[in-house]
Amino acid sequence: MVTRLSNFFLRTLREDPAGAEVASHKLLIRAGYIRPQASGIFAWLPLGLRVKARIEKVVREEMAAAGAQEVHFPALMPREAYEASGRWDEYGDLLFRLQDRKGGDYLLAPTHEEAFTLLVKDLYSSYKDLPLTIYQIQDKYRDEARPRAGLLRGREFTMKDAYSFDASDAGLDVSYQAQRDAYERIFQRLGLEYVIVQADAGAMGGSRSEEFLHPTPVGEDTFVRSEGGYAANVEAYTTAIPEPLPFDAASAPVIFDSPNTPTIETLVTHANANLEGEFTAADTLKNVVLALTHLDGTRELVVIGIPGDREVDEKRAEVAFAPAEIEPATPDDFEKHPLLVKGYIGPWSPTGAILGEESATGIRYLLDPRVVEGTSWITGANIDQKHAHSVIAGRDFSADGVVEIANVREGDAAPDGSGPVHLARGMEIGHVFQLGRKYADALGLKVLDENGKLVTVTMGSYGIGVTRILAIIAELNNDDKGLIWPASVAPFDVHVVAAGRDQVAFDVAADAAAQLEAAGLDVLYDDRPKVSPGVKFGDAELVGVPRVLVVGRGAADGQVELWDRRSGERDTVSLAEALQTLATR
Amino acid sequence: MVTRLSNFFLRTLREDPAGAEVASHKLLIRAGYIRPQASGIFAWLPLGLRVKARIEKVVREEMAAAGAQEVHFPALMPREAYEASGRWDEYGDLLFRLQDRKGGDYLLAPTHEEAFTLLVKDLYSSYKDLPLTIYQIQDKYRDEARPRAGLLRGREFTMKDAYSFDASDAGLDVSYQAQRDAYERIFQRLGLEYVIVQADAGAMGGSRSEEFLHPTPVGEDTFVRSEGGYAANVEAYTTAIPEPLPFDAASAPVIFDSPNTPTIETLVTHANANLEGEFTAADTLKNVVLALTHLDGTRELVVIGIPGDREVDEKRAEVAFAPAEIEPATPDDFEKHPLLVKGYIGPWSPTGAILGEESATGIRYLLDPRVVEGTSWITGANIDQKHAHSVIAGRDFSADGVVEIANVREGDAAPDGSGPVHLARGMEIGHVFQLGRKYADALGLKVLDENGKLVTVTMGSYGIGVTRILAIIAELNNDDKGLIWPASVAPFDVHVVAAGRDQVAFDVAADAAAQLEAAGLDVLYDDRPKVSPGVKFGDAELVGVPRVLVVGRGAADGQVELWDRRSGERDTVSLAEALQTLATR
Repeated sequence: MVTRLSNFFLRTLREDPAGAEVASHKLLIRAGYIRPQASGIFAWLPLGLRVKARIEKVVREEMAAAGAQEVHFPALMPREAYEASGRWDEYGDLLFRLQDRKGGDYLLAPTHEEAFTLLVKDLYSSYKDLPLTIYQIQDKYRDEARPRAGLLRGREFTMKDAYSFDASDAGLDVSYQAQRDAYERIFQRLGLEYVIVQADAGAMGGSRSEEFLHPTPVGEDTFVRSEGGYAANVEAYTTAIPEPLPFDAASAPVIFDSPNTPTIETLVTHANANLEGEFTAADTLKNVVLALTHLDGTRELVVIGIPGDREVDEKRAEVAFAPAEIEPATPDDFEKHPLLVKGYIGPWSPTGAILGEESATGIRYLLDPRVVEGTSWITGANIDQKHAHSVIAGRDFSADGVVEIANVREGDAAPDGSGPVHLARGMEIGHVFQLGRKYADALGLKVLDENGKLVTVTMGSYGIGVTRILAIIAELNNDDKGLIWPASVAPFDVHVVAAGRDQVAFDVAADAAAQLEAAGLDVLYDDRPKVSPGVKFGDAELVGVPRVLVVGRGAADGQVELWDRRSGERDTVSLAEALQTLATR
Repeated sequence: MVTRLSNFFLRTLREDPAGAEVASHKLLIRAGYIRPQASGIFAWLPLGLRVKARIEKVVREEMAAAGAQEVHFPALMPREAYEASGRWDEYGDLLFRLQDRKGGDYLLAPTHEEAFTLLVKDLYSSYKDLPLTIYQIQDKYRDEARPRAGLLRGREFTMKDAYSFDASDAGLDVSYQAQRDAYERIFQRLGLEYVIVQADAGAMGGSRSEEFLHPTPVGEDTFVRSEGGYAANVEAYTTAIPEPLPFDAASAPVIFDSPNTPTIETLVTHANANLEGEFTAADTLKNVVLALTHLDGTRELVVIGIPGDREVDEKRAEVAFAPAEIEPATPDDFEKHPLLVKGYIGPWSPTGAILGEESATGIRYLLDPRVVEGTSWITGANIDQKHAHSVIAGRDFSADGVVEIANVREGDAAPDGSGPVHLARGMEIGHVFQLGRKYADALGLKVLDENGKLVTVTMGSYGIGVTRILAIIAELNNDDKGLIWPASVAPFDVHVVAAGRDQVAFDVAADAAAQLEAAGLDVLYDDRPKVSPGVKFGDAELVGVPRVLVVGRGAADGQVELWDRRSGERDTVSLAEALQTLATR
């Protein structure tokens, strides 16, 4: 049945909606695809629902091809399983929590690892039942602190989440690869360029983890790539650790007065003026104090030494200390710990300082991986207005651990030796990762193996944000006049516009629309009787169906226009030729 | 692609699940269609999802045929609109309520009248935009006090809810009829017998309201029907009001001692022993005290007079006083109101009693519609151990209003004069009703009419419980061996069972399954290599695909069995004939 615009539920808007900043957010609302209901929560109008259904169809077909089976969980889930996995707490304010009339605790599920684990535990008991990959396409909820960019970071979103179950690590690798391959096919079919990067598993736990990023300068994720094929997001990048240096011949550390040098910049200036040699920030060791808030609510200070030419990368630091939350130490923290001399903090103990292995404060001291044995540093002396030089790692100080919180820079070495990395930005469009046994352990999912022994199942988790992908496609496919959908996901195959004033244009257009629909195309027919051609063209451009058939003045002579929305080209052709072209694309 | 049971996500269960009482609940779990997640909340397994998708397809097709357009709202909605309509409070404990991280109030929507109203207000402004009917198929939440019977009364359920918008009452009638007709077609296609009954609009407000009930003795709703075509559920049944009687010649009321007669039964016995004449409960007027709790929390006592041969029907009483909640007056209430003499309460004032028009208590006195002017009653004298006779309505007492709380009985007159009614039970499978202007008024939905004047839009609301229908179909189609799906909603068209031990049976079965799938059928193929034919047959009976193709010992000779799951008949035929029969049904 041809969809007629005269009674189609659509109202295009001339003005950008208030507060919308990115193109997809503005255009999806202006063109009548979605309507906001609350911050980060949207209703889907007929146009939007059509595009969403097309994307879901591609996802379902590729899931079936990969042997995954569809199930469906409710959004409202009881607390217990999320308590057992630790995520009831770990997710913090991101979770929508509620109680039922009996006081039972529930949540709106942000993802369903626990539920899938329990379902398989409930029904399966033998290695013969595995491998198994099951998935759902489902509406999820996360109470983002700052919902923004429309569907790109909403509080409700539709996600395809799949979970694989295997009795062995080798099996998991196979299941993982099958989903990874399916994701490549999905993005190829959707015409969405992607880079697969190593990712940190974050709050999910687990081992191998890769993200599919769409490379774009406006992406909110930063990733690195080397010519040699290494790719990772900055959270997952690991520093190439340098070789230790010999230090037998090195001179002893020397404490020197360094008044008014609480920053790296002032310290370097002071050193170049007063010490022998020429120094840069890279010669200094900066000691940063962070406050961690652990899940149980306790607060811990840690001091971290990083080369003075690096900054703390907040995302890398978050990942490094997750699930604890981090913030810079406050003036109050320094007041409570007078041994931490702000601006002059140093690491080591042999000189009588307070940190390091024999710390008297109980405060952990952690180091950037570049601070290997034998490296020599100018750093704080843990005495006000004093620093020290010739302070050698492994001789004069050591650490309680290594941590990656320093930023990654263009030209840093890839950890696999594949050369220097380049930085780029991207948007996450998919995520595959090996959960391993985290959830199976927490929830007791075991099966009998070939020898009749109970083994813990190993799992994978695979997510694609359906509504996010829709927004990204909109973000990538538009101009100043509106949306321009790729044919694979357009809400309609053809937009027929009756643009004449004579009845003949309407008759010919209606007939053309009916013929195209009969040929198996989805047709939107702008049959509005009293709307000017100009308004109709404007709406066609805003809505963004890629191929438009304009039936106007030439209709009486059998002439119509084929309008390519993307290129803007309009070709006058005979009606028969137009129908032929459209039907056989 | 043929679905092979060897790797299909299914585990059938031999035992009925704990706590399941009705057949659909037991069998949908045992046969692997759904799994409970919490009280009244279920996950959908592949089999269940297939049946659900088939029902949704029928609903979508008929909605499109009726000109309704699909949209989709989130389950999580902000409080404001529900506050404006009054339902934030009216729904009471049935609502799942929650707060976001900023303390904003939200709910999980039980239905979306408000959201649809605001959406249309948001986009439309003229009578020319109307009529409009939009719908969604969406997961809804209600925190039922006693979730039971599996999907029949869950706390999460999938519903198709449609809403119509018209500028005039005549338009609403047309939109209403279009949905009503679509519902008839849906139930016919699903093979579901139905009766359309008048219904009370309940908490929804509005005027015309009809329910589609599936008649069944195990239904939880009671309805009445007359031979002449009247049909209503008991909440909506209205009493045929008798003609007033002349009472000029009637004698004056007489108070008499009636010790120990606090019940109708004891009163009738006493009257027959001590008064002239022969009396039944129908000659007495029973005065019931109910306590109403209004939305604002205030508590009000009301006294209601009903013929002594009738009982209070709780559902009718709930509807009569909605949105107030009702309960019987408590001993505490009687203590606080000593003028209410329990067991001896009467209505009237001329004899000095305390109720009725000139009530000194402020307590409202309401009457059953049968208590018309001129009717004579034996009733309480509002004095302990005393009653009165010859108490005549309209002469000796009158009321503050009429109310229908008495039960409906077999043989009661239909209000439209179409004869006596019969009582029957049914399950609700759909509901259509005219909301009128309730929501449009509350939320300010107006459009400009032909004369450029703002008029308030009138609305209809139309609901079908998709998951409820699935459960009812399961409830109606099973035997002691399992489910028996109608072909229109079965999860598969054919269930092929390889039942031999020889490879040939498997080869023939696999080939047959592939041919059937190629012919456009959905095929489930039981290819499990080490499972006995008996277990396979048992699973086939439990799962309930209506047509089973058994490939067993005769396979080598080209012989197979066509097994009709409903009749149990098994016909041995040639493979070619079997494929022909199955493919051309």
